[in-house]
Amino acid sequence: MHQLLNPPKRILMGPGPTDVNQRVLRAMSIPLIGHMDPAFIQIMDEVKEMTREIFQTKNSFTTIISATGSAGMETCLVNLLEPGDEAVVCVNGVFGNRMCDIVGRCGATLTRIDAPWGKTIDPQEVKKVLSGLKPKLVAIVHAETSTGVRQPLEEISKIVHEAGALFLVDAVTSLGGCELKVDEWGIDACYSGSQKCLSAPPGLSPVTFSDAALEVMNKRKTKVQSWYLDLSLIRNYWEGSKRAYHHTAPISMVYAIHEAMTIVLEEGLEERFKRHHGSHLLLKEGLENLGFEYLVEEAYRLPMLNAVKIPQGSDDATIRSRLLTEYNIEIGNGLGDFSGKIFRIGLMGESANVNYVNMLIAALKDVMH
Amino acid sequence: MHQLLNPPKRILMGPGPTDVNQRVLRAMSIPLIGHMDPAFIQIMDEVKEMTREIFQTKNSFTTIISATGSAGMETCLVNLLEPGDEAVVCVNGVFGNRMCDIVGRCGATLTRIDAPWGKTIDPQEVKKVLSGLKPKLVAIVHAETSTGVRQPLEEISKIVHEAGALFLVDAVTSLGGCELKVDEWGIDACYSGSQKCLSAPPGLSPVTFSDAALEVMNKRKTKVQSWYLDLSLIRNYWEGSKRAYHHTAPISMVYAIHEAMTIVLEEGLEERFKRHHGSHLLLKEGLENLGFEYLVEEAYRLPMLNAVKIPQGSDDATIRSRLLTEYNIEIGNGLGDFSGKIFRIGLMGESANVNYVNMLIAALKDVMH
Repeated sequence: MHQLLNPPKRILMGPGPTDVNQRVLRAMSIPLIGHMDPAFIQIMDEVKEMTREIFQTKNSFTTIISATGSAGMETCLVNLLEPGDEAVVCVNGVFGNRMCDIVGRCGATLTRIDAPWGKTIDPQEVKKVLSGLKPKLVAIVHAETSTGVRQPLEEISKIVHEAGALFLVDAVTSLGGCELKVDEWGIDACYSGSQKCLSAPPGLSPVTFSDAALEVMNKRKTKVQSWYLDLSLIRNYWEGSKRAYHHTAPISMVYAIHEAMTIVLEEGLEERFKRHHGSHLLLKEGLENLGFEYLVEEAYRLPMLNAVKIPQGSDDATIRSRLLTEYNIEIGNGLGDFSGKIFRIGLMGESANVNYVNMLIAALKDVMH
Repeated sequence: MHQLLNPPKRILMGPGPTDVNQRVLRAMSIPLIGHMDPAFIQIMDEVKEMTREIFQTKNSFTTIISATGSAGMETCLVNLLEPGDEAVVCVNGVFGNRMCDIVGRCGATLTRIDAPWGKTIDPQEVKKVLSGLKPKLVAIVHAETSTGVRQPLEEISKIVHEAGALFLVDAVTSLGGCELKVDEWGIDACYSGSQKCLSAPPGLSPVTFSDAALEVMNKRKTKVQSWYLDLSLIRNYWEGSKRAYHHTAPISMVYAIHEAMTIVLEEGLEERFKRHHGSHLLLKEGLENLGFEYLVEEAYRLPMLNAVKIPQGSDDATIRSRLLTEYNIEIGNGLGDFSGKIFRIGLMGESANVNYVNMLIAALKDVMH
């Protein structure tokens, strides 16, 4: 009646989850302790400190949300926006759209800045829109997982701050895989996910708020619409000398991200970014030899999310299904308008290595012909 | 610089998390597969089927929320309530209060039915309140983790349905530890947590909706205020032939709950309830021999959450701290008005066994004198 849990061994080269280091798997097999245990509070403190290092921030308010990256997105928006507030969202893919959806659920007024999927948002466009508006925040995706676009942030950050708005950045796919400097780039609220370049399992979302963002949060007139994601409550559990129970922290997942972040910092951020970039160049060479073209202009490509056009005459579902069943390799499909038109090949965290690239290129050579 | 992850080995006898079976720990150390992998979809289907068995329901809509039990509470409320709706919440502890807080964040009108903490809600009181109201739902806690009260549900369920309302039940602490019959008792929406009597780690929340609850959800005029917990979106990922990506499921935690539920069903619900009850009786005898008195009247005690009064002259913090540091045993403290006045001793899932009871009684005998 009950099925044995015996999933196949896969090579994860999709848009996440990625392969996970055996040390992270072992960390999750450590017996549990309580969520109010002094030993667990210490582990939380260590996780906070490592999260700061990886976000490259000194933000005192840096925490882990007990749900996936999309909940991190919702956390940032629902804590900063109140009904009637104005928000600007830059949209060039699925995750910009998702932010618009959530802004609407906050009862805030939305102004979209759209760019074609696969292109970056133009700073001058942001400047133009902000000249006629006084929004509370401007939100943008650093690494658009649906298209593989890396969005430059520094110029837009300046424009946003000149307009007196907070700058909110989605770093789900970039954190731990390419440069992301929260403080230096003037990011006020930033969220990520555990299952991309950090290479922990999915289920947690690192979040950091600048003092300016905290101040906006502290001055709210209304309660945050989500109890579970209300940072004023979560803060009391993650910070200070007296930790107040909010929800029961996901102990084993916190073990996992503790170990995964330890591995990130042992490798070093710069080394890790170099490894991602090197794997990307190797993959690019292999894919181009097979006749693939990248969706995104070279200067704005993410190393960890390679979106390539499916050649005419090749069938998306057949190829991905053969890769999965014959080679146990998972790659990602296109979303929205790109469904059936692109592959999304992930090189994230543990999955960003030469052997994986070689395996995938060899397998693709077979199934494409 | 970076700390070794090396938590102490604890005996978990608090209000959750509980000890976890080594099979569940091993399940989490299985390498990951993708959240859209056909093999993962099958695992999700198996989890749904086991969740139905454990909830004792045929509800087609039965799922797992990718966050803890409190997010399950929020899920049920935000999907069923719209601004301006009327809701009745029965309150006799922390978790009833939490529901009231969330009802307010939904913009719904709240009517509370209060009973003293440690007492049950009187069905006649519910009848009286409902005679003058036409609420959309009535919410109640089956197993109040803050006090150890087991709330009888059948009579109240009839009263609620006669008033034309939906019946929403918090079963975070009861599911898998004592009788809970979702269908037979006419429960329309029910949520639980992974870390109590199911003995998986915290991080997931099983949820089930009756057809009547689904219909109310389907007839909403407004979007659910939470994108992450919007069941109309989550359904498209957990149900049907074409699974649509919503968020990235927490793969390793789903492995964990799959294995934990398999263990629950291997033991059998009735056997498992008997084991919890037997452990409770043994603990009760030991505690009474030490001079402890239970907070709750015998007929309404939860077997898995034993709330006992701290004898005069004994100090709460000192005793719990000595249990933790000298014996590695965790028990829970009182919340709210009961802070410093009661202990909450958990006998949940793997932790409900004679050896644990014996260890705790022996340790208490030492530290109380």
